[in-house]
Amino acid sequence: MRHKPSKEEFNKKFEEVTLDTEQIFKGKIISLQVDKVKLPNGNISTREIVRHPGAVAVLAIYNDKMIVVEQYRKPLEKNQIEIPAGKLDPGEEPKEAAIRELKEETGFDCGSIKQINSFFTSPGFADEKIVLFFAEDLIRGEMELDEDEFLSCESITLEQALEYIKEEKISDAKTITAVYAWQIYKLTGKI
Amino acid sequence: MRHKPSKEEFNKKFEEVTLDTEQIFKGKIISLQVDKVKLPNGNISTREIVRHPGAVAVLAIYNDKMIVVEQYRKPLEKNQIEIPAGKLDPGEEPKEAAIRELKEETGFDCGSIKQINSFFTSPGFADEKIVLFFAEDLIRGEMELDEDEFLSCESITLEQALEYIKEEKISDAKTITAVYAWQIYKLTGKI
Repeated sequence: MRHKPSKEEFNKKFEEVTLDTEQIFKGKIISLQVDKVKLPNGNISTREIVRHPGAVAVLAIYNDKMIVVEQYRKPLEKNQIEIPAGKLDPGEEPKEAAIRELKEETGFDCGSIKQINSFFTSPGFADEKIVLFFAEDLIRGEMELDEDEFLSCESITLEQALEYIKEEKISDAKTITAVYAWQIYKLTGKI
Repeated sequence: MRHKPSKEEFNKKFEEVTLDTEQIFKGKIISLQVDKVKLPNGNISTREIVRHPGAVAVLAIYNDKMIVVEQYRKPLEKNQIEIPAGKLDPGEEPKEAAIRELKEETGFDCGSIKQINSFFTSPGFADEKIVLFFAEDLIRGEMELDEDEFLSCESITLEQALEYIKEEKISDAKTITAVYAWQIYKLTGKI
């Protein structure tokens, strides 16, 4: 009979033990460190690790359309259409952050919200974790953007969203995940 | 009539113009720079940007099961179950990289492979782009791991994959995207 590992055993298999940590950079949003690690075979290697406070994103449905925001993404040097999202404030609960970001970026309050899933965006080099929510029963209101925040808001059908993925107007992991989750919800009733 | 913006107009809306770039770090895998930018309102801000060579990932189906690998992810300090994936070698085409990574990490050759989509993992602070492939008609062979690469390979059903997402044993964006794409394929015949 196969041994079913405990959660701790599962997490420790292939562990890379930290021998040393060098702090390289501490910025407004991310920080960077390089860890010297001992591999399972005893060899020594390094790991480049970006630390991030974590974020939330919201699949918000209004009149059978998904609310999206368009904004400039400097690392890509282009505009992107994405679901509303943002970083966690210190000490903030993900659900609270999701309600706040939806309101700030789109003006919508939501009558109901629940978690769909959560995921690390780049587990090879970063610890950024996004918690994805599903918001319904939306009530339209005013956007509350910071002075230095530039984005526009629209709503699109599932067909448009799938078309935008093909055209790479939608081309980020969280939004594609949300579009697929929405498609599955429409097909199965489950989210 | 609403003006339909060209791809160039779309990409330049809300542009943040680079005034200066400071190179912070150049590592084995990622590099980090801080750009000073002019915002659309004329204000000055900074952007922390991680550069990454890009990667591929493969949804590989064998006997109606998805091939996954288990490996330690240092930024998360735990093991993760993910689809086979890896960085692009310099000058390498994504499809070629996908075939290579599938072979190295799982031992499988594939009879057919096609692109599902592509996505940026963290467009707020990184330019990492993953091209996701769908591989079928697999032929079992030997794994070809590097000396310092530690992972184990298994295959799981869709139901197990969805359960692993709930348990957070699967908790990375590319694998969740792949699982959802597979579920949609099983429901609609389209991928």
